[in-house]
Amino acid sequence: MAYQAPVEQIAFILNRIVSFPQLAETELFAEATPETLNAILTEAGKLATEIIAPVNRAGDLTPARLENGRLRSSPGYAEAFRALAEGGWIGIAADPEHGGMGLPQALNMAMNEMIASGCLALQLNPLLTQGQIEALEHHGSDALKALYLPKLISGEWSGTMNLTEPQAGSDVGALTTRAERAGDGTYRITGQKIFITWGDSDVTENVCHLVLARLPDGAPGTRGISLFMVPKLIPDADGNPGVANDLRVVSLEHKLGIHGSPTCVMSFEGAQGWLVGEEHKGMAAMFTMMNCARLGVGVQGVAQAEAALQQAVAYAAERVQMGPIIRHPDVRRMLAESRAEVFAARAICMACAVALDMAKATGSDEWAARAAFLTPIAKAHGTDVGIRVSDTAVQVHGGMGYIEETGAAQYLRDVRITAIYEGTNGIQAMDLVGRKLMDGGAAAMALLDEILDGAKAAQAEEPELANQVWQAAETLREATQDLLDRDLDARFAGAAPYLAGFARVLGAHFHLRAATGGGSKPLARVHIARILPHYAADLAAARAGLDDLLAVDDRLLAGQMPG
Amino acid sequence: MAYQAPVEQIAFILNRIVSFPQLAETELFAEATPETLNAILTEAGKLATEIIAPVNRAGDLTPARLENGRLRSSPGYAEAFRALAEGGWIGIAADPEHGGMGLPQALNMAMNEMIASGCLALQLNPLLTQGQIEALEHHGSDALKALYLPKLISGEWSGTMNLTEPQAGSDVGALTTRAERAGDGTYRITGQKIFITWGDSDVTENVCHLVLARLPDGAPGTRGISLFMVPKLIPDADGNPGVANDLRVVSLEHKLGIHGSPTCVMSFEGAQGWLVGEEHKGMAAMFTMMNCARLGVGVQGVAQAEAALQQAVAYAAERVQMGPIIRHPDVRRMLAESRAEVFAARAICMACAVALDMAKATGSDEWAARAAFLTPIAKAHGTDVGIRVSDTAVQVHGGMGYIEETGAAQYLRDVRITAIYEGTNGIQAMDLVGRKLMDGGAAAMALLDEILDGAKAAQAEEPELANQVWQAAETLREATQDLLDRDLDARFAGAAPYLAGFARVLGAHFHLRAATGGGSKPLARVHIARILPHYAADLAAARAGLDDLLAVDDRLLAGQMPG
Repeated sequence: MAYQAPVEQIAFILNRIVSFPQLAETELFAEATPETLNAILTEAGKLATEIIAPVNRAGDLTPARLENGRLRSSPGYAEAFRALAEGGWIGIAADPEHGGMGLPQALNMAMNEMIASGCLALQLNPLLTQGQIEALEHHGSDALKALYLPKLISGEWSGTMNLTEPQAGSDVGALTTRAERAGDGTYRITGQKIFITWGDSDVTENVCHLVLARLPDGAPGTRGISLFMVPKLIPDADGNPGVANDLRVVSLEHKLGIHGSPTCVMSFEGAQGWLVGEEHKGMAAMFTMMNCARLGVGVQGVAQAEAALQQAVAYAAERVQMGPIIRHPDVRRMLAESRAEVFAARAICMACAVALDMAKATGSDEWAARAAFLTPIAKAHGTDVGIRVSDTAVQVHGGMGYIEETGAAQYLRDVRITAIYEGTNGIQAMDLVGRKLMDGGAAAMALLDEILDGAKAAQAEEPELANQVWQAAETLREATQDLLDRDLDARFAGAAPYLAGFARVLGAHFHLRAATGGGSKPLARVHIARILPHYAADLAAARAGLDDLLAVDDRLLAGQMPG
Repeated sequence: MAYQAPVEQIAFILNRIVSFPQLAETELFAEATPETLNAILTEAGKLATEIIAPVNRAGDLTPARLENGRLRSSPGYAEAFRALAEGGWIGIAADPEHGGMGLPQALNMAMNEMIASGCLALQLNPLLTQGQIEALEHHGSDALKALYLPKLISGEWSGTMNLTEPQAGSDVGALTTRAERAGDGTYRITGQKIFITWGDSDVTENVCHLVLARLPDGAPGTRGISLFMVPKLIPDADGNPGVANDLRVVSLEHKLGIHGSPTCVMSFEGAQGWLVGEEHKGMAAMFTMMNCARLGVGVQGVAQAEAALQQAVAYAAERVQMGPIIRHPDVRRMLAESRAEVFAARAICMACAVALDMAKATGSDEWAARAAFLTPIAKAHGTDVGIRVSDTAVQVHGGMGYIEETGAAQYLRDVRITAIYEGTNGIQAMDLVGRKLMDGGAAAMALLDEILDGAKAAQAEEPELANQVWQAAETLREATQDLLDRDLDARFAGAAPYLAGFARVLGAHFHLRAATGGGSKPLARVHIARILPHYAADLAAARAGLDDLLAVDDRLLAGQMPG
């Protein structure tokens, strides 16, 4: 059975769980009416099901390749991408001044989810372009905006992010790519970048690279890095793609999954670039882009989980082994737990998107802090769920899950990257307990208050579920306070389980809201009885500190006896 | 860095954790002395590191293939297999009467682990041959034994198991392959089998298929199934491979991993077969073979976890991002938790092997019940750990983990099958709470008593760790009692979390034994602080029953709104 966009489930979460309707009460998003929401979800769902999903398998079987230095994308990708671009989907959250629709990120992320369910490898292209649009909107000069935004928003051109170098992965500050002032207001960029997603494209007529590089007078580390727009083809006087810039794709990586997405080694050889934002302030500009991109990647995890789960449910309904296996208790457990996890992860991502939108619409620092706090949770938890559910979906298929033709294994291979790129999930967890607790825990505690209020409100109708959520939130509050009292290394040692525990409690909170607000009570029970309870162990581990980890001998780790 | 066989860690577990030395006190295994143990581990470790591991990558890149209906195995496999066979390794646990060494399964499994760390796809071949040897030893006629066992033990011939058919996976009783009496004491076998591992081989001169089929007067279901030996080449009067039997490989599967292991669709077209055991009693004979094979698969999980973890540790020691990442708290957490899990899973598998050996050596029902109880835990938990640790090893590599050339992704792809074949992990869990609790919980409670005794003994030296293990074991006892009071469907709904919870407690028990017996206290602390505590949530889920799962609407599972 093919992927069916879960339009009603997404609409339910937006409308009933994460307060999407409040956006339409703001001036900025007055057009985000129920009618708009329905129209967007329905049309994007059709696109995902009918146009995007059908090319997913071909991209896996026929990866993007280089032919005499030129990229050849997978069969059907160009046509599918054109349908997406021509529908105006890339710019639905972009500034109307340059051709965007100015709709909320929440709708954009709902659209992104469905497209990413259809084909993750292809969806990466518009997702990165959206990140570039956002970076330019915030930091680009008027000239850059006027030149690039209309082309990016229309999908005629696509965008990339060039951060990583062989020696500079999570440690971006170690980069060595050089920028030199050309004397005419432009710059010359020289260096090599790796892991550049869609670093070349034959589905768009130009590729616009945002490149981090260091000027000769740039300080070492992250403080001396600048951001440049470096187009593959330099726009001519009319803004059309002109002469080729001095850059090239050296090679493509051979990857576990997302074969249809070309992952490029890029060489910049004195390429002409234009400054984005201020000199030496490139990291700030890049962070703007990364926050939304991180949420977008969390949404990719949800997307792949949804698609993989749908396939597993369809298989389980058809596969007979002493009755359809969907009725076997252990199979049903796998499916119901997976559905509960998808619901929770989607709600977390959508809550983050609404917070981003409210921050933008109201200028409220509280909403901005909420969005910033939720972003690493949405990214890491969304992608963890993506991997876990895709893995379970393989298991539900039994032996057939291990056969590539079934397609279940592709979801697992494809989604695996989402826990790594845009900052590994470990980096996300460190961001959560480091930077995102630098407010003394204000954002965390505000969220916890909301969870406790929710439990109180649900007490009358669902006392047992409400009590469990209440208890979990109280334990989470203690753990949060405990982490605030510790040094950064001890926090980092507990970062990943803290993030996992927070996500469990938050997910249970949204399930409780559903159980008392027209959603599925049984699904909430599955989450709160089977997924939530691990919070206690997560939060115990979050508080376990660094000492026991350091005390484990390196030789023992490596399989030898301690020295 | 290449795989280094963890000889000392395995020896420590055998000698200090799972009471291997008691085997040498039995008459049957009097030769299993410390000297034998050291010699076997050292030599098998060398073989694994120097001969087997070097062909692992080639098998992934150049899968086994069919050429005009004949199998061509991956480059280097034939030579590596010959070294294994000529070293006498296949038959180290086999009956000396037919050329085996008659050593304990515990040593055999230690050897199997190291070979499977080197190359899982290749190791499947001798593992299945060992299963066939065991089935023939128990159920074969003297003539069959005399003809086949020497050839299988020497590795001149290899063995397969033919259970699965398209409509009969976990439900073996649904099989339709027919057997007919030929009138000369032999049988004619007709039907199609799928997922036949190493269903053909060019690394051995003959392939011996054990095939489940139904005689015309066989009852429906599993009670009417018989087991047959169906050789690819029918032995001539001198016992050498003679004329080709009427069977063929129809095709090979294209799989997520273990590309070097040919997974065959087999067609038996009136092939000549010889009965193994009694007519209609094939399932019993097959179960003999499956129990040891299941432990062997659990060991494969441990093996892949070990190899993947070693690679991740080596990478983390070398990779510098503001210092070597092995010193980063979150990376260290991943590595230390993984090492703690590998220790626990290996100890569980080895405890199961020693129980099998003690049962064989003493004829004790208690040891047999212990082995039977531990088998599904060893299989499911060992392979779950294999997948979890291999997945973590990918994550430790960051972006490099997603690039196939790194090799980390291969471990994840390869090990993924181990949770599926030889009975899915769901089937294992159902076996545990169903068949393995049919003794009224006697085997479970005997094991729990031992865990509680261990905690008591460790109380003086490690009070905190001992108390946590004690508490966990008490909770596990309550959960076990609770499951015993429930009907089978309710048990099945909680089977997987029950198995996971039992494995956590058992793993902590072995860690505690290590902490107070010359092993690593810090590693025990990591397990007991970070991995054990999830037992509470596991056991709560184990007791949650079936009702909430059934109440989740099918349409909701599939991504639609409830009907």
